[in-house]
Amino acid sequence: MNAPSSINQLHARRLGLLSQHEAVALVHVDCPICRSEGVSAHSRVTLTSGGKSIIATLYQVSADWLATNTIGLSETAWTGLGLDDKGEVTVTHSPPVQSLSFVRQRIFDDGLNERQISSIVRDIVSGAYSDIHLAAFVTAISARPLSDGEVTSLTRAMIETGDQTEWDEKTVVDKHCVGGLPGNRTTPIVVAIVAAHGLLIPKTSSRAITSPAGTADTMEVLTRVDLSGDEMREVVRQTGGCFVWGDGVGFSPADTDIIRVERALNFDAPGTMVASVLSKKIAAGSTHIVIDMPVGPTAKVKNVVEARQLSNVFDTVASAFGIHLRIEVTDGSQPVGRGIGPALEARDVLAVLGNEPDAPADLFEKSCLLAGAILELAGIAPPGEGKSMAEDTIANGKAWAKFLAICEAQGGLREPPDAKYKRPVYAPFNGRVASINNRKLARAAKLAGAPDDKAAGLDLKVRLGDQVGQGEALFVLHTETIGELTYVLDYVHANPDIIELTH
Amino acid sequence: MNAPSSINQLHARRLGLLSQHEAVALVHVDCPICRSEGVSAHSRVTLTSGGKSIIATLYQVSADWLATNTIGLSETAWTGLGLDDKGEVTVTHSPPVQSLSFVRQRIFDDGLNERQISSIVRDIVSGAYSDIHLAAFVTAISARPLSDGEVTSLTRAMIETGDQTEWDEKTVVDKHCVGGLPGNRTTPIVVAIVAAHGLLIPKTSSRAITSPAGTADTMEVLTRVDLSGDEMREVVRQTGGCFVWGDGVGFSPADTDIIRVERALNFDAPGTMVASVLSKKIAAGSTHIVIDMPVGPTAKVKNVVEARQLSNVFDTVASAFGIHLRIEVTDGSQPVGRGIGPALEARDVLAVLGNEPDAPADLFEKSCLLAGAILELAGIAPPGEGKSMAEDTIANGKAWAKFLAICEAQGGLREPPDAKYKRPVYAPFNGRVASINNRKLARAAKLAGAPDDKAAGLDLKVRLGDQVGQGEALFVLHTETIGELTYVLDYVHANPDIIELTH
Repeated sequence: MNAPSSINQLHARRLGLLSQHEAVALVHVDCPICRSEGVSAHSRVTLTSGGKSIIATLYQVSADWLATNTIGLSETAWTGLGLDDKGEVTVTHSPPVQSLSFVRQRIFDDGLNERQISSIVRDIVSGAYSDIHLAAFVTAISARPLSDGEVTSLTRAMIETGDQTEWDEKTVVDKHCVGGLPGNRTTPIVVAIVAAHGLLIPKTSSRAITSPAGTADTMEVLTRVDLSGDEMREVVRQTGGCFVWGDGVGFSPADTDIIRVERALNFDAPGTMVASVLSKKIAAGSTHIVIDMPVGPTAKVKNVVEARQLSNVFDTVASAFGIHLRIEVTDGSQPVGRGIGPALEARDVLAVLGNEPDAPADLFEKSCLLAGAILELAGIAPPGEGKSMAEDTIANGKAWAKFLAICEAQGGLREPPDAKYKRPVYAPFNGRVASINNRKLARAAKLAGAPDDKAAGLDLKVRLGDQVGQGEALFVLHTETIGELTYVLDYVHANPDIIELTH
Repeated sequence: MNAPSSINQLHARRLGLLSQHEAVALVHVDCPICRSEGVSAHSRVTLTSGGKSIIATLYQVSADWLATNTIGLSETAWTGLGLDDKGEVTVTHSPPVQSLSFVRQRIFDDGLNERQISSIVRDIVSGAYSDIHLAAFVTAISARPLSDGEVTSLTRAMIETGDQTEWDEKTVVDKHCVGGLPGNRTTPIVVAIVAAHGLLIPKTSSRAITSPAGTADTMEVLTRVDLSGDEMREVVRQTGGCFVWGDGVGFSPADTDIIRVERALNFDAPGTMVASVLSKKIAAGSTHIVIDMPVGPTAKVKNVVEARQLSNVFDTVASAFGIHLRIEVTDGSQPVGRGIGPALEARDVLAVLGNEPDAPADLFEKSCLLAGAILELAGIAPPGEGKSMAEDTIANGKAWAKFLAICEAQGGLREPPDAKYKRPVYAPFNGRVASINNRKLARAAKLAGAPDDKAAGLDLKVRLGDQVGQGEALFVLHTETIGELTYVLDYVHANPDIIELTH
């Protein structure tokens, strides 16, 4: 298929282009090799160097900063090819991606079988899908929702295309929140409590998908979270728990691509959500899983009907893999805790674990509820006694000691940063807090810079039902730049229903 | 929203990056302005220079070839900002794209109203949608097909966001083929015939979407097709007809983006197809339109049920705009003409118009059928007599004279190029041609390099029902490079059912 290698190679040039997604390669329009192979701009091409191959999107450059015998590579392409400071790269046509015909089939017609889904997921993991292909796949399985069988197949394919961990212990626990509720940073507290009871909880967390912070974003404020799979296993063996960013450990790598596209589209669909959650838990070796499902008009799950539908999918897929699952439907009418944004949420977590007098009571309550559910599901606590057992574990300082031990094993506890600009938003009149719009509050925290700026976000000063006086702060915006402060204030003023008061 | 302009500006650098789609901008990771504005990698940002603004995707570069006070711009970004050899560019956050919430709504739930569709199309035309957003929109309206009302709204929005032409004449005709049939290059012949009868036919054509050649690709082999709107109107006023690439004249600009994404996904959906076709015709001022709808197992329209459904959408939308429409359902079981690929199809067109003895009879027949349908629809020919009138127009040389006159007005007739490599594919045994797979044949022509390489494609030597001897050529591959020849041969050998023989 290739012309002789002598005329088929280009000198690799590291462009330092940070393209988290597709591997990108740039060649000069007069590049002779590309002419001989007949590859043209926007082709998906195969790049080969020293035995390694990747698929990349090719762009052409008509200016002379790139030599005609050179191929400029993005960081993804450079590291994917395992290049050091120089190397030769062969450019050839990419073979047709056969599984794209299954994506087309899924857009227009039938469901997919296990083999077809497996082939799609393998191609996603190998980098053969462009953003357009990924977006089409994610949209198709949202517009025509995945069947239970498809979700099970997708989950299995996502597990099998990544690393998997097994443990000697028969019971390995985990928890997950389906999200949609700002703040709600229960995970670090739950992990500390259940690990203090001797349970194994190899917790991996994601970064924010559509929210101002994921647990990984929040815990990164306090300690190192980008552990390798081996480092993670070592921490869990030492301490029983961990707080690790899921993408780093190699479980369910397809999920990273799917989530990236869902983030750009600002949605996540039930089927991919279940596959995403369960594939990572099962790959991590978990056997007993508690799902926190907040329900409220502006949460991700809007009402009990949606909650029941989503629960059914979780139950079906968990059964197919022999997983013990318990779903806790929780109040999703307002944020949990006060901070929204990585550092502000980390501050709340430390306050609860440290038994501080002004710690947010709702975060304490909810964390103990979930930890209690795990203690019961795993047979540590008798039914109905999990929550009080969890509360004791915070009160007696054992959860705090375990939290410190885990952070220590991951590289030490860090101090949360403080934002450069803080700006209160005031109540326009005397009244009672009638509603809080989770989505708009989350949007404001994101416009403030969260989660990319760790210190950015907002600090809630009121809860539903509170009586506030005119000029009293409803919340305080935290930003690292003036640009973002101005930007988020524009949004807040254009959306007075973020927090609504009644006279 | 901006920091003071003195620290908010970067020197523009023209990278010559040919990104036909999104405007792309590159900045150094240590770029101080971006830090002060809080924009991060992959942000969609607004770039402003000298009063012009565009939305671009921002990438960061960690290497020193790009200075920290500089912003590298792709050609789309550079020309979009109207920059000459230098300039200053201001980078700010892009405002949230409100219409994306309608795209999300369309993925999960209801249909869209006229205002929502109009807002999506305006944002697409303004460049506010990334490829991920476009792919999600196109997939959503394919997976949950557009209602007739939505297609009408989409058509109207696509017309209104582009240029529109009006003519003094009351009857302005046009034709369109829904495609899926390789070869089938009737358009240039039909235009020549009906213009020879004094009808106005301001024909704009697309480049290939999923096929080895669109009419614009083929006609570009013979003459200049990238005329401006004013140039096109002048040619039509002079000669009655034209062969023009639709994107150049500014009709229905949203269609360009939609088609680009559909091409990457290798499909086009009925709703967008009707909107795409009719928006361009109506914007061009056409009043009487004939649609060629080939039906066959491997054509785009598979059977009469699909043909009826698609016809209904065409009829409904045409009625909504007061357009006279006639649909000709034609044989889609095999290619029309012999050549597949721009230059090879152009050769067939010249043979038919030139009354050459070896001209493909099927292409002659079908062109006259369609031209006759237009002549009847426009009231030039009595019912049932259009086809023979069209045949006479070729036989008496008037169609050829009109074709030459139009090409002359567009810049002169060119000679089709000849491919560098030609390689026959032979019959494996004595037999009769039992089936021809249009899709695989088209795929082979594309792998050979069509339509980017004008001379590339394939030349059919047999038709359905032909008796062939072992070792006789079924078709001849034409390529410009050895790489492509090897590549397409691999495909042909892996797919012996491209042309199937029976003993």
